[in-house]
Amino acid sequence: MIELIKGNIIEAKTFGDPAITQNGYLAAKDGVVLGVFSALPEQYANLPVTDYSGQLILQGFCDMHLHAPQYPMLGMGMDLPLMDWLKTYTYKTEARFADSDFARGTYQRLAAELVKNGTTRVCIYSSTHADATRILMQELERAGIGGFAGKVNMDRDSCECQEGTEESKRETLRWLEECAQFKKIKPILTPRFTPSCTNELMGWLGKLAEERGLYVQSHLSENYKEIELVKRLHPDCEQYWQTYDKYGLWKEHTIMAHCVHSDAREQQAMIDHNVLCVHCPDSNINICSGFAPVRQMKNRGVWLALGSDIAGGAQLPMLQVITGCLRMSKARAIATDGAEPFLTVGEAYYLATSAGARYFGDRDGFAPGNPLHAVVVSDASMPPSARTLSVQERFERAVYLADDRAITAVYGNGQKIK
Amino acid sequence: MIELIKGNIIEAKTFGDPAITQNGYLAAKDGVVLGVFSALPEQYANLPVTDYSGQLILQGFCDMHLHAPQYPMLGMGMDLPLMDWLKTYTYKTEARFADSDFARGTYQRLAAELVKNGTTRVCIYSSTHADATRILMQELERAGIGGFAGKVNMDRDSCECQEGTEESKRETLRWLEECAQFKKIKPILTPRFTPSCTNELMGWLGKLAEERGLYVQSHLSENYKEIELVKRLHPDCEQYWQTYDKYGLWKEHTIMAHCVHSDAREQQAMIDHNVLCVHCPDSNINICSGFAPVRQMKNRGVWLALGSDIAGGAQLPMLQVITGCLRMSKARAIATDGAEPFLTVGEAYYLATSAGARYFGDRDGFAPGNPLHAVVVSDASMPPSARTLSVQERFERAVYLADDRAITAVYGNGQKIK
Repeated sequence: MIELIKGNIIEAKTFGDPAITQNGYLAAKDGVVLGVFSALPEQYANLPVTDYSGQLILQGFCDMHLHAPQYPMLGMGMDLPLMDWLKTYTYKTEARFADSDFARGTYQRLAAELVKNGTTRVCIYSSTHADATRILMQELERAGIGGFAGKVNMDRDSCECQEGTEESKRETLRWLEECAQFKKIKPILTPRFTPSCTNELMGWLGKLAEERGLYVQSHLSENYKEIELVKRLHPDCEQYWQTYDKYGLWKEHTIMAHCVHSDAREQQAMIDHNVLCVHCPDSNINICSGFAPVRQMKNRGVWLALGSDIAGGAQLPMLQVITGCLRMSKARAIATDGAEPFLTVGEAYYLATSAGARYFGDRDGFAPGNPLHAVVVSDASMPPSARTLSVQERFERAVYLADDRAITAVYGNGQKIK
Repeated sequence: MIELIKGNIIEAKTFGDPAITQNGYLAAKDGVVLGVFSALPEQYANLPVTDYSGQLILQGFCDMHLHAPQYPMLGMGMDLPLMDWLKTYTYKTEARFADSDFARGTYQRLAAELVKNGTTRVCIYSSTHADATRILMQELERAGIGGFAGKVNMDRDSCECQEGTEESKRETLRWLEECAQFKKIKPILTPRFTPSCTNELMGWLGKLAEERGLYVQSHLSENYKEIELVKRLHPDCEQYWQTYDKYGLWKEHTIMAHCVHSDAREQQAMIDHNVLCVHCPDSNINICSGFAPVRQMKNRGVWLALGSDIAGGAQLPMLQVITGCLRMSKARAIATDGAEPFLTVGEAYYLATSAGARYFGDRDGFAPGNPLHAVVVSDASMPPSARTLSVQERFERAVYLADDRAITAVYGNGQKIK
């Protein structure tokens, strides 16, 4: 079935200004993009058109790093130092997901919030619980969200959340068996981060990743104390990334969140192995991790996308993550006296869409062959403007001002899901 | 008439943790606070109670620096350097307010947005236009917002917005005559900033301020280029603040926005003259002005409150200004390696409420004798929490997550205005 959508189409085709097709047509067949057209192609002339004229059609957002079981603590404990925050809130909250009913209600709500805000694909952490992870995946899939979800592995120094090593292995295998039922949302191995996993578990996960061709997600170089701790735990590794590499976890499509303090060598290791770095601006500032060198990493060729990182981040909507990214890039520009120029709206939009979509095999923008992921934004209720605005200006304003009320439709994997 | 309001009452009594009265009663007579009570006092036992049980009752917000005629450009041009932004957007937008119909529609909308978001008092800039300024004051007053508004004076280097010196004087006097009609919103003299006013105009405004007992608002030490320019224009002044002092504009209750780069001496001059410094976190980051030393200024005794500074700031809701302030204080903490600790939620709440309310003669918190300014917030639609939360936790979460939908009632100067 061919679907035609009309509106102002805004594509992140490159890391730069978006490509804009004013009053254009986006065509898809069976949920797969056929192309973007400035005028309706003759062969589609008799087909019905879904008319979003006057509205903005953006690409669906990819949230490449977030913690589902931290959703209940969104916006709380932000005055606490990291370790107190983990102990007072994070581990206790995650432990609650042993209760499947609590997990069901929470994840239903989370999935609905994601869709409402235009996030159509995620790479998401669950808790250690195999059952709650299955429930999370069910609720995401039911809501129409695609991507990867991972049962967290953590058998060291993790308070209420800690598993035994054997338990962690057994539950991981049990969870993986149950993942066959999912079509849109796939399993990804998720050692929480080096300090929370024994070497034995890390090694076992690395082998499992290889045997089953699974991707891996974890955290890297978020703050100085963590980096020092990793050094003490792995004195044989010169750099943090090598603690993953040692166990076969540093490889093509591995996702590393944060990388705030990764130096040129660690960045090069990402490039060499096609590791995806996920920048989480709101988390970086809330937890005082630092100003990530986003412009520098992009210039060097690191593959970089964005994440909300709830609940270190307090903002689930990716439009807020984009403006958070812009503001944090300005903080970096201030801190480097302008040596690292701030990001533009178009650049941050690229990081929130096409850069993440590549993880799922897409090409940049609404490229033919991509599954259709789109977000329709109305700016009808924005402040009255002093003159006629260009679509580019309206796009920039929408990025800063639109909330879920302005998002009038969302398409996830070809389906209209809002 | 005595009014009784029931709920979880959260008062910014000091620059620190808020004072919380759980399931308490806030009593007011003819719009003036009588007190906060943990149980209903006997003498009020037979009076009707407005019941917000389970909700949070916050103080009304004071937005102590914003540009009304920049509302139409909210969220636009954020990628531009300051001078280009001023020329491409600001001056052109402000010039549109020569059209009284455009002013009426825009200011009606702005006033409604302020109320919806719990801002009950402002110190606000208009454009140079006397008529549009009167319209702004009418619309604010009609919406129930109090405070001060100023016709802007600028007779130098201001493109489309520039006035002649005589014109500026004449229009200022004409505007002041019309201000007699207002009860809640009062005139304040508003030389835009030193570079946009001739010495003659500055001197005239200083005399006018003295003759009529008027307050003054302007900008100070926002960025380095501006500070250099001021030095060139006033070589006789060692510091920026002295260019205001020279003309009698630096005095009790003068408001200075930004002060990002004010050093210890300039800060001391604020303290000595009881000048109010208005910190505008979102503007500071959007325009790359720098990380204001808020903790340092507070420690030294500077009188400091918050402003949205739209449209340098892209966020009108003061709850967003509070979280912006928290985030920017963390940027300052990062930039100073922790030497200047970040602000807590309670501290930023104080800056957004009681600190500004002092400008209007209030005492901190819901003190007896204060006019009633209150914002009722429901957190019923926040994420499901993992355990029972304290009121303090719910307050912190509301600060991070609540938008206008969560604000169920607003009281401005004793009247229910939402």
